[in-house]
Amino acid sequence: MDDILVLSEKELRRAVRLDLEAIDVIENVFRALAGEGVIMPPVLSMHMEDANGEVDVKTAYLPGLSSFAVKISPGFFDNPGLGLPSTSGLMVMLSARTGHVDAVLLDNGYLTNIRTAAAGAVAARHLAPATVDTAGVIGAGVQARLQIVAAHMARPFSTVLLWSPNDALNESAAEEIAARTGAGVTIASTAEAVVTASELVVTSTPASSPVLMADWLHPRLHITCMGADQSNKNELDPKVLERSDLYACDRVAQCELIGELRTARAAGYLNDVTPPELGQIITGKASGRESDRDITVCDLTGTGAQDTAIANYALQNARELGLGLTIVR
Amino acid sequence: MDDILVLSEKELRRAVRLDLEAIDVIENVFRALAGEGVIMPPVLSMHMEDANGEVDVKTAYLPGLSSFAVKISPGFFDNPGLGLPSTSGLMVMLSARTGHVDAVLLDNGYLTNIRTAAAGAVAARHLAPATVDTAGVIGAGVQARLQIVAAHMARPFSTVLLWSPNDALNESAAEEIAARTGAGVTIASTAEAVVTASELVVTSTPASSPVLMADWLHPRLHITCMGADQSNKNELDPKVLERSDLYACDRVAQCELIGELRTARAAGYLNDVTPPELGQIITGKASGRESDRDITVCDLTGTGAQDTAIANYALQNARELGLGLTIVR
Repeated sequence: MDDILVLSEKELRRAVRLDLEAIDVIENVFRALAGEGVIMPPVLSMHMEDANGEVDVKTAYLPGLSSFAVKISPGFFDNPGLGLPSTSGLMVMLSARTGHVDAVLLDNGYLTNIRTAAAGAVAARHLAPATVDTAGVIGAGVQARLQIVAAHMARPFSTVLLWSPNDALNESAAEEIAARTGAGVTIASTAEAVVTASELVVTSTPASSPVLMADWLHPRLHITCMGADQSNKNELDPKVLERSDLYACDRVAQCELIGELRTARAAGYLNDVTPPELGQIITGKASGRESDRDITVCDLTGTGAQDTAIANYALQNARELGLGLTIVR
Repeated sequence: MDDILVLSEKELRRAVRLDLEAIDVIENVFRALAGEGVIMPPVLSMHMEDANGEVDVKTAYLPGLSSFAVKISPGFFDNPGLGLPSTSGLMVMLSARTGHVDAVLLDNGYLTNIRTAAAGAVAARHLAPATVDTAGVIGAGVQARLQIVAAHMARPFSTVLLWSPNDALNESAAEEIAARTGAGVTIASTAEAVVTASELVVTSTPASSPVLMADWLHPRLHITCMGADQSNKNELDPKVLERSDLYACDRVAQCELIGELRTARAAGYLNDVTPPELGQIITGKASGRESDRDITVCDLTGTGAQDTAIANYALQNARELGLGLTIVR
C-alpha cells in the first residue's frame, strides 16, 4: 500500500473513457462544491514569456475521497511549430490521510480533456432545453470535439453545426463528431449561422475577444462556454451575460478571475450580482432554467475538484484492471 | 528524448549528496535571484484541517536551465503517530522549451532537505564571521542535523552546542553531527546557553513562537533561521531583527508573508525598510557583514528557484549514472 503507482497515458485511456459513468463522477463534483468541506485554493499560474509558455497548477481536497490530486498543466504555444501538442501535463495523487504520494498519472492532459468534456455534459443535462434537435460548436480542436460528443450523451440531438476559422481542422472535426455521435454534421459558414440555428451551443476556443455575439441570441438556447480559463481569455460578448435569463458559473471565485464573468464585469455588467453555481442548481439550492424558452449560459473555467474526482476514478479503475508500474517508496 | 524518466528516492540519494558541489549549485540560485529573468510565483498552499495536513506547491523558471521543477510538499502532522514521516512529496520536471514532462523525482522530500541545508551553508559562507570555533543549533530533527553538517563545510568549527526540547532526539542528533563533522558536540541545558556561547547559530524548528530571544544576542554572531515557512511559524523574537546589524532574506516577497519578517513587522519593526536579499549580498549589490563584531541574521523560507536548480542538478547526475526508469510518453 505504501508503494507509488505510475500510470502512462495509454493505461489511463484504458481506465477512463468519456461515458455516462465519467459524467456522473463529474456531476457529483458539482454536488460536492455546493456543499461543505471542499477545499479549493486559487490556481497557481506561471507565465514564461521567453518560452511563450505557461503552467497552471490546480488542486482540491474533497471529503470522502482517499486521495487528492495536484494537477500540473503546461501550455507552450510554439509547440505546434515543433510538431508537438501545446498542452500536456500530469496529475499527482496524494493520500488524504498521510499526504504521501499514492500515484503519478502521466496523462499528458487526457484526464483534463475528459473531466472538462464531462462538465459540459453536466451543464447540458441540467440547463439545456429538455429536447435538443440541433447543437452547435464554435471551435474544432480536441476539446471542441469532446464537448459535442459529451453533450450528445445528455441531449441526443440529430444535427450538429460546426464553425471555426481553421478549415483543415473543421473537416476532421466534422468527420470525428459524425462517427462518434451518429448525428449529421454540417460545417457552417459563420459562427452566427451556428448560433442562430442551434438550441445548444458550446464554445471551445482559445479566443481573447468575443466569438459569440449577443445579437445572435434567441429563445430556447443554452450556451456552454469553456474556452476562458486564463485572465486574458474571453469568448462571449459581455452583453450575452446580461441578456440571458440565467448565467451560471462552475465556481464564482474562478469565473470572476479567469472566466467570462471577468470580462462582463469589466464591461460594467453583473457587478452587483453573485451568479449561481452549477452545483447549486443541480442540488436545488438555486433555480435553473425556468421555461423552455429561457436563454441560459454556463461558464466553465475548470476546477481542481474535477481533477481530484477524475483522478480518484482513474486510479480505482486502473487498480481493478491491474494496470501501472509500482515504484518502491 | 521524449520519454519520461522516473527516479526513486534511493536513486536520487545516489545522484545528489550534501557536498560542496551541491552548495555551489544553490549559491548560483541566489546569484540568479539577484539578476534578471527568474520567474517565481507565490507559493500555492492548501490546508486540510480534517486531516491535520497541508500541501505547498512551489515552482520557478530559471533562464538557462533545460527544465523547471514544480515541487509538491505535503506535511501531515498526525503521521508520526502512524510511524510515518510528516513530510514527503516529489518534484516534477517540465521542459523549459515545450512544457512536456521530462522527469518525475519521487524524492519524498530528500532534495528539499539537501537544497535547504545547502542554502544554510551559503548563508554561513557569506555572512558568518570569517572564522568560527563554536556553532550552535536549536532543533534536533533531520534538517537541524543537515544544517550543521552543511554549515561545517563553510566554517569548519571544532565545537557544536545543541538544544531542543526533545531529549531522545538530542542524543541521536549529537551522535550524528559528531560522526559527520568530527566536531565535539555537547547537548546544552537551554537554548540561551547555545546562543550565548556560539558565533554561528542555526534555528531549525517548527516553532510558532520565539525560541531565540534578543537578550541573548552578542557581538560576532551570525544566525540562520530556517524554520518559518508558513504564515503561522516564528522562531525569532521580533526584536532580534531590529537589534542585529544586518537582516537578510532569501526572498523578501516570501519572508514578509511566511518568514520572520512577517512576525517582526506585525510587532512594529522594519515596516519602512526593504531588507537586502542573500543573492544581492553575494553579488555585491547590497552590503553584507561589515565587521567581525557585527550581528547578522539570514531568514530562509525556501524558494522554488532552489527546487528547480537542485532538480536539474539531480537529473543531470542521474542521467550520467544511468539511473531511473523510462516511461514511454
